Amino acid sequence: MLTAVYPGSFDPVTAGHLDVIARAARTFDELVVAVGKNGGKAPFFTVEERVEMLREVCAPWPCVRVDAFEGMLVEYARECKAQVVVKGLRAVSDFEYEFQMALANRRLAPDVETLFMMTSAEHLYLSSSLVKEIARLGGEISSLVPPPVERRLRDRLRPQ
Amino acid sequence: MLTAVYPGSFDPVTAGHLDVIARAARTFDELVVAVGKNGGKAPFFTVEERVEMLREVCAPWPCVRVDAFEGMLVEYARECKAQVVVKGLRAVSDFEYEFQMALANRRLAPDVETLFMMTSAEHLYLSSSLVKEIARLGGEISSLVPPPVERRLRDRLRPQ
Amino acid sequence: MLTAVYPGSFDPVTAGHLDVIARAARTFDELVVAVGKNGGKAPFFTVEERVEMLREVCAPWPCVRVDAFEGMLVEYARECKAQVVVKGLRAVSDFEYEFQMALANRRLAPDVETLFMMTSAEHLYLSSSLVKEIARLGGEISSLVPPPVERRLRDRLRPQ
Amino acid sequence: MLTAVYPGSFDPVTAGHLDVIARAARTFDELVVAVGKNGGKAPFFTVEERVEMLREVCAPWPCVRVDAFEGMLVEYARECKAQVVVKGLRAVSDFEYEFQMALANRRLAPDVETLFMMTSAEHLYLSSSLVKEIARLGGEISSLVPPPVERRLRDRLRPQ
Amino acid sequence: MLTAVYPGSFDPVTAGHLDVIARAARTFDELVVAVGKNGGKAPFFTVEERVEMLREVCAPWPCVRVDAFEGMLVEYARECKAQVVVKGLRAVSDFEYEFQMALANRRLAPDVETLFMMTSAEHLYLSSSLVKEIARLGGEISSLVPPPVERRLRDRLRPQ
Amino acid sequence: MLTAVYPGSFDPVTAGHLDVIARAARTFDELVVAVGKNGGKAPFFTVEERVEMLREVCAPWPCVRVDAFEGMLVEYARECKAQVVVKGLRAVSDFEYEFQMALANRRLAPDVETLFMMTSAEHLYLSSSLVKEIARLGGEISSLVPPPVERRLRDRLRPQ
Repeated sequence: MLTAVYPGSFDPVTAGHLDVIARAARTFDELVVAVGKNGGKAPFFTVEERVEMLREVCAPWPCVRVDAFEGMLVEYARECKAQVVVKGLRAVSDFEYEFQMALANRRLAPDVETLFMMTSAEHLYLSSSLVKEIARLGGEISSLVPPPVERRLRDRLRPQ
Repeated sequence: MLTAVYPGSFDPVTAGHLDVIARAARTFDELVVAVGKNGGKAPFFTVEERVEMLREVCAPWPCVRVDAFEGMLVEYARECKAQVVVKGLRAVSDFEYEFQMALANRRLAPDVETLFMMTSAEHLYLSSSLVKEIARLGGEISSLVPPPVERRLRDRLRPQ
Repeated sequence: MLTAVYPGSFDPVTAGHLDVIARAARTFDELVVAVGKNGGKAPFFTVEERVEMLREVCAPWPCVRVDAFEGMLVEYARECKAQVVVKGLRAVSDFEYEFQMALANRRLAPDVETLFMMTSAEHLYLSSSLVKEIARLGGEISSLVPPPVERRLRDRLRPQ
Repeated sequence: MLTAVYPGSFDPVTAGHLDVIARAARTFDELVVAVGKNGGKAPFFTVEERVEMLREVCAPWPCVRVDAFEGMLVEYARECKAQVVVKGLRAVSDFEYEFQMALANRRLAPDVETLFMMTSAEHLYLSSSLVKEIARLGGEISSLVPPPVERRLRDRLRPQ
Repeated sequence: MLTAVYPGSFDPVTAGHLDVIARAARTFDELVVAVGKNGGKAPFFTVEERVEMLREVCAPWPCVRVDAFEGMLVEYARECKAQVVVKGLRAVSDFEYEFQMALANRRLAPDVETLFMMTSAEHLYLSSSLVKEIARLGGEISSLVPPPVERRLRDRLRPQ
Repeated sequence: MLTAVYPGSFDPVTAGHLDVIARAARTFDELVVAVGKNGGKAPFFTVEERVEMLREVCAPWPCVRVDAFEGMLVEYARECKAQVVVKGLRAVSDFEYEFQMALANRRLAPDVETLFMMTSAEHLYLSSSLVKEIARLGGEISSLVPPPVERRLRDRLRPQ
């Protein structure tokens, strides 16, 4: 059985993330979508909220499990008995950073393989920060995030 | 069962290719190493020689099968009942080309997923052309290619 | 009146080129789509065939004129009384080459400005060579080129 | 009439920005140089100071108007009745970011076209942050910014 | 006599930095490893600690001197009577930033030449931030930094 | 004594090459400008002509010697007793290729260090092929190559 971990901050999950999840769910026997707790930056949604939104949008895939993790990714992957870490690549700048992380992780855990998927063309420009910026400025985000995320983003940004 | 195709011209197979093969053989249930016959450029070794060398060096992995193919890669992958195409990435220029090919292949065959593996750090600079160039200039290639390839390269380049 | 030249080899024109033409036709008063005759490589279609196909597919835009040119692009732009050269950008490798050409052209003709448009996301992976390769291998190209180009590609590649 | 918006933080305007303004002023009928108010980072000069400096240095071009804006760039461009957004490109890292922004803006407002100009070779290394860093360290900045900006930078950084 | 300055924040010095120092020490008559005091970010080790660790690990090379500096790098290089500034390059993103800095420094001080060395393949993924991140998460860092740095990192991160 | 080899095809030498030579001549005790004989492509000038033009334009620097070489660059550097190979970098695409060559050469000859210099901003877009293309199309090349090269290019391209 081939198990893969798809790590990220998912703050929030976008249509681009969902596209990677859909394709990874079809490729691997089990997929763990894992929200990292380490992020230095002040998050927009709490880890709990992010996990909840992911669970809602990943419900259609029985082989997908949503979780949160702390500490080193490769340790977490081993705990999950995952042989594979999946990452999405959008652009050259992603590539360089991910390249360095993949080489570092391979040194730390040669038994965990990092595999990259290209983001689909129509989501190339998408990122969680872009979504939040457009939402803050009042722009239309319905094609950029799944409905449960759109609803929460609007709730959170609604003037009190 | 997860079957992957690892396509290339392998003219000849290098230590960098072998590193990708070793890791892919550990990750997938079955791996087809597939020598493409389309290449426009005049090859150094014939398709038959390339397949023969690959068979010799891939013998240690029972799940690896070596083959040659003609026509479109995604059609070949479907014939092999492979869900996955594996490619190695070394550098930004690889990335851009592979990115375009992956998007094109996804459009032609959405059911075949392209997955990328990073080449290991010590083989980053390696390519089949570099190996041939060094061999032609009389340089040391024993750490760059497996022994059966080194032997044949020397035979071929020996002054008659 | 703002006149722009959109130069290229257009061997053949693809859906990506058409997307740039459509947007440039909306932006400038007059657009000259100009097939370069200098290309060192053996072309697939003759200059005349390429101009003919372009004229067919550009017919909907009255402000678009199709032409062929020889010699230096900036000289040709001046003959057309064009203040602007338009180029499409797809990827980092395009960017570097185009950057060098734009700096060289600016030195040769500071009065002609090079403006770049991003290719739309769904055509990012498209190039004339990719279209020809897919057509040669018998793949489906109807979404990659306009119908008159598809017809001619099939005619040309049909086994005699 | 072709109207273009050239947005930025201009904190402060540099010789590189001025080079883009000069060339855009020659290309378009009207050019709006627009200082964005959204920037998350603590600015060095206030929006008012930045607008004032821009007005001083843009005085030679009658077709250039300086303004400040809040909210989404494409909304602002529509308010200005601008068909075009102009951006300067210096390097690959610029390119990737601008590429993603251009694709996102095109989705939000397909009627507003983003056009890119290459920064001239002698200003390739220039950025507002670099200017401020050199000024802070007491270096010579007279060839990097126009005189009104140099004067204000010195005033602001003079030990009290 | 050819004197080179190798500047950086060295927070802390890694095996990758040491590799550059070893090769630069062999190439130049005198090498000044210079810790910059300007860095805007909150450092992990003080300038004094960083200098101390560097002195410890650079002891084997008699031609290497460790120092700290403030203000502009090119001014400091002139004070050291250094004709050369040495930088290590790891990746495309490094390259672009260093390219801009080298062009800016050449304008400020045409008599000081910036020379670049490629980081060795096995240290490509290494950076001071990565080392600190792995150490914080409790990972193994003994092959990433020299022993005196490993000891101090562990001391600093040990729960009190 | 520090000796450097600056290898290339120099077909022909451009103002950009001369800029690297001038700066390397100031930095190293001895500089060998070395024309490679291996190039697969059909050259425009013979090796003898290229050496002759280089000798003419390098005459002002007594420490510069012009030579031609065959075989592996690192072997040639050792024959010259050079500790250093100097290369000019213009752009990201240069960087990637040179990066791979530098890593390969380091493996073949760890005692020969590759050092990179950034090309000056005004020559960023310059290459021997661009010069030849502009000359063929009848463009102005007097600021792109030194006078002896301009004369020969015109002679060679003059219609008989």
